[in-house]
Amino acid sequence: MFEFAITAQSGRARTGLFHTPHGVVQTPLFMPVGTQGSVKGLSPRELREIGSQIILGNTYHLLLRPGPERVRALGGLHKFAAYDGPWLTDSGGFQVMSLGDLRKISEQGVTFRSHLNGDLIELTPEYSIQVQEALGADIIMAFDECPPYPATTEYLKASIERTLRWLERCLKAKTRPDQALFAIAQGGVDLKLRRFSAEATVAFDTPGFAIGGLAVGEPKEGMYPAVELSTRLLPEHKPRYLMGLGHPEDLVAAVALGVDMFDCVYPTRTGRFGYALVPEGRLNLKLSRYLDDPRPIDPACDCYACTHYSRAYLAHLVRAEEMLAPRMISLHNLRYLHRLMEGARTAIQTGNYGEFAQDFAGRRFGRQIPGWFTRALQEGGHWN
Amino acid sequence: MFEFAITAQSGRARTGLFHTPHGVVQTPLFMPVGTQGSVKGLSPRELREIGSQIILGNTYHLLLRPGPERVRALGGLHKFAAYDGPWLTDSGGFQVMSLGDLRKISEQGVTFRSHLNGDLIELTPEYSIQVQEALGADIIMAFDECPPYPATTEYLKASIERTLRWLERCLKAKTRPDQALFAIAQGGVDLKLRRFSAEATVAFDTPGFAIGGLAVGEPKEGMYPAVELSTRLLPEHKPRYLMGLGHPEDLVAAVALGVDMFDCVYPTRTGRFGYALVPEGRLNLKLSRYLDDPRPIDPACDCYACTHYSRAYLAHLVRAEEMLAPRMISLHNLRYLHRLMEGARTAIQTGNYGEFAQDFAGRRFGRQIPGWFTRALQEGGHWN
Repeated sequence: MFEFAITAQSGRARTGLFHTPHGVVQTPLFMPVGTQGSVKGLSPRELREIGSQIILGNTYHLLLRPGPERVRALGGLHKFAAYDGPWLTDSGGFQVMSLGDLRKISEQGVTFRSHLNGDLIELTPEYSIQVQEALGADIIMAFDECPPYPATTEYLKASIERTLRWLERCLKAKTRPDQALFAIAQGGVDLKLRRFSAEATVAFDTPGFAIGGLAVGEPKEGMYPAVELSTRLLPEHKPRYLMGLGHPEDLVAAVALGVDMFDCVYPTRTGRFGYALVPEGRLNLKLSRYLDDPRPIDPACDCYACTHYSRAYLAHLVRAEEMLAPRMISLHNLRYLHRLMEGARTAIQTGNYGEFAQDFAGRRFGRQIPGWFTRALQEGGHWN
Repeated sequence: MFEFAITAQSGRARTGLFHTPHGVVQTPLFMPVGTQGSVKGLSPRELREIGSQIILGNTYHLLLRPGPERVRALGGLHKFAAYDGPWLTDSGGFQVMSLGDLRKISEQGVTFRSHLNGDLIELTPEYSIQVQEALGADIIMAFDECPPYPATTEYLKASIERTLRWLERCLKAKTRPDQALFAIAQGGVDLKLRRFSAEATVAFDTPGFAIGGLAVGEPKEGMYPAVELSTRLLPEHKPRYLMGLGHPEDLVAAVALGVDMFDCVYPTRTGRFGYALVPEGRLNLKLSRYLDDPRPIDPACDCYACTHYSRAYLAHLVRAEEMLAPRMISLHNLRYLHRLMEGARTAIQTGNYGEFAQDFAGRRFGRQIPGWFTRALQEGGHWN
């Protein structure tokens, strides 16, 4: 269980197979976010059809509603939400940190007020694991602090050390052998602290490692050196999960550096706002120019929206505030990211990741490929 | 084209096959409402899977947005909304009448202000037909007045006469041979006026007839005699469409009297509010008692929601305001009505409609079967 087999490499990019109790997944992959136990608007059948492999559930939200014991009694997330493929739950840490004045961090854990009813709740490493065991995901995450950006070196260091102590408590609290706990390396964009956190975290030898604390407001020029260092320090033969990234260009750049897993609300959230992902960026379907456009969002896409509907119809639905609009655009956007990762896997397997990434960049950025992207490809060994 | 063949009878209830350019439909049937060219939250694939046979589009809404010429240019409703089965459009009459102070009726037509942007629009019989020809449905409806309830005899009579003159203008304006225009008999709950309207309307010999102006606030004790008289006066060999009814008990009672077609936003609207149709009535999934209920909405139902989800999960989604809730409950509610009509068709074909209707009433009403329901069965020849 939880074996990770690397099947091909192209530069530092790699494809792998990760074994979970609910199936084997192919990496690199993107995980749709089912915040409250549902990927907004989509059914498990559709998620399967578009190639979703792991669904992410949020411990913070599910803890508040419907509550972990309820989910456990109803068969865990797999049965509760009728998706019997692999699940991953986060620890709740990221969400409670973002509550700002509503929460207080101590050595023991985080005390916060529910955004739903104001109840005072204490989330500790032990309680996070207990909740995640009740939810029953295949992969569970260590309870950590995701420090804000910017943060002082002093704050970051203290936070990393506490997160390491919390990791130890998480591992001690964990009882289910059918769940893999992934540890999370932090350190912001401070490369010294990144190294310190990664090295100390790796020592715990968990079945997978996450790179946390990025994409929280720092510039990409600061983020990518941290990703690059992290994938160098994290063990070769364990999956690497870069938390919270979902822009296509970030997936392509981070895969180049050896990242295996991603998650983000971006494709579904931007879809609900009427934006459809395409190789050139995204279409804003609220614009009147699309009301007469008979083409699909993306002629190369095989999703239900692209094989059935015109931009004109979807633009009409967006304006008319019809529920089918967010549903169909979210479906397309997830399919877009899944196809992107399918393309990446094929390119890695044929040793052409550099070509794949440069082709992507040409369509996405035209002639103005940003420096951080080019550097990521160079450091990944895909661009001379 | 537009042949209607009666295939079986049980009392006054009958099954039939109605031929349209986009397929043959089995009656009695219920038509889901796709107000703005989309049955809220559902895809054409799902509508096919649950047994939907005709989708209804609203001329008023589609006229305002996206506009008839746009729909025509994009291939008509069939192509625009990617549902290539039969469509029916209403005339816009019902919606503009309900605008109250925003509209003014004259012999020429109805002048109203768009609820979207305040534009002044004149909807006449000719323009309604022109719009419906652009939308391209298989069945189009005559532009009529649906008078309010209560209305004076004087008002009703003048309204009926004007509606007859409008019907004549509609038929004169109609140019497409691949669309069937259904005339609408009015008359409120005044049986004399019902007779007058029905007889005068039938003289136009359209391929189908609708019973309009009911379910607008009158008690069922007043409505059913009007339905009973209407189905007696409308021709045997033409489909009969009772407009705007969607409660299961109304469908069962009206089929008993020989009605063939129904439409209503009820199943999808009540679904969006968290109510799920069951043989006993409806479940209010907002109630906390369902949060721990592992059963499906209806164990006898074969829809996606009932074969995948517990009441507990759906109740959670309702509380969490997740989009999947209205989608799944609407899907179930439509499937419930389609299954009800499938059951009715089978019962009619085996000559057991009375038994079917009494069995339905036993579960729906228990021992307190309302008088209007019993009388409808009696007058339909299903209950001695």
